[in-house]
Amino acid sequence: MRRKEFAVDDREAIESFLREMDYGFLGTINEAGEPRVLPLNFVWLNGCIYFHGSRAGEKMRSMAADSRVCFTVAKPYARIPSYWSDPELACPATVYFKSVLITGRAEDVTDPAEKAEALSAFMRKLQPEGGYAPIDPADERYARQLAGTAVLKITPDAVTAKFKFGQNMKGDKRQAVVDRLLERDGPLDRETAELVKRLAPPDRGPQ
Amino acid sequence: MRRKEFAVDDREAIESFLREMDYGFLGTINEAGEPRVLPLNFVWLNGCIYFHGSRAGEKMRSMAADSRVCFTVAKPYARIPSYWSDPELACPATVYFKSVLITGRAEDVTDPAEKAEALSAFMRKLQPEGGYAPIDPADERYARQLAGTAVLKITPDAVTAKFKFGQNMKGDKRQAVVDRLLERDGPLDRETAELVKRLAPPDRGPQ
Repeated sequence: MRRKEFAVDDREAIESFLREMDYGFLGTINEAGEPRVLPLNFVWLNGCIYFHGSRAGEKMRSMAADSRVCFTVAKPYARIPSYWSDPELACPATVYFKSVLITGRAEDVTDPAEKAEALSAFMRKLQPEGGYAPIDPADERYARQLAGTAVLKITPDAVTAKFKFGQNMKGDKRQAVVDRLLERDGPLDRETAELVKRLAPPDRGPQ
Repeated sequence: MRRKEFAVDDREAIESFLREMDYGFLGTINEAGEPRVLPLNFVWLNGCIYFHGSRAGEKMRSMAADSRVCFTVAKPYARIPSYWSDPELACPATVYFKSVLITGRAEDVTDPAEKAEALSAFMRKLQPEGGYAPIDPADERYARQLAGTAVLKITPDAVTAKFKFGQNMKGDKRQAVVDRLLERDGPLDRETAELVKRLAPPDRGPQ
């Protein structure tokens, strides 16, 4: 399996990525037994995924019928054109990326204090500049809204990460990719070059 | 259901979004009956989603066990802070976005000509500048690679789109959001303001 080369076990790198990202894709099985995937804003808090939503709708019905879920977060980095490593064939063309896949069960958070804590963390991410009254279940202005909003929590059974940054290449080819990235200097190229160097397998790395 | 307000039926707007995007999230049900979500590069071609991958791995085993899939593509636009519409409460904070959810069955493409057509379309998207020999099943250099690469196709049973751009707001509140977006002028703010105006319900629109 090639995938093993891209697997990442570094808990801090995974959590840091989950703290950086603000949306992911929730996989559920609906009442008809069919897969469904919905994009959601989320926050990573105390080792869990939290998201919120309306109490109505297929998402909530799906999770009530079958609480097993998968939550996947991914970020594409630089495009790597085929001609950086092969002058003829299209095959090596790829996009480097980070992805984290979380499996577990979704559970309805009913404790008002935990709901408020999750929504507060969500707001710190979405609106770090503030500009709103603290979300407090004791605050009358929030009580009705808090009761009407569903907050869901996924406690992970497993967290697997795949960061694909050329770990399958030989050292000299990988260094060539780093050089071309720095030369092209597009939006995520410098950051991608850093990740290619950082994630290089120690026995093959040019550094 | 609030969702209806954000539903988009405009086929051209949906297809244009699918042509613009180059990655999405595939939902499958694995052999244990659990949902799985994987990020994938894809191309929208002849009314179908095409993607490719290794013949080994859980993704392929899942689809062999149950071919029903969901493929979701989403793009976040501007963040809308709560204080643009409410000076006190955090509740209105949101992120505008486009999303398209496709359901159908995944099928293994076996015809070498169709595989080559899909991979060629994929390359035109990933590497529009060219720099590789055309992908031709008659070309000896590609024959082995084409045989070894799995190309999957999802023929949609249903395509549903949700473009969330303030359609639930009253005309004056929506106009205020447009004004604040143009004033802030962040990376996607101008494009978001255009979409807010374009998607405004005709009976409420300020224009």
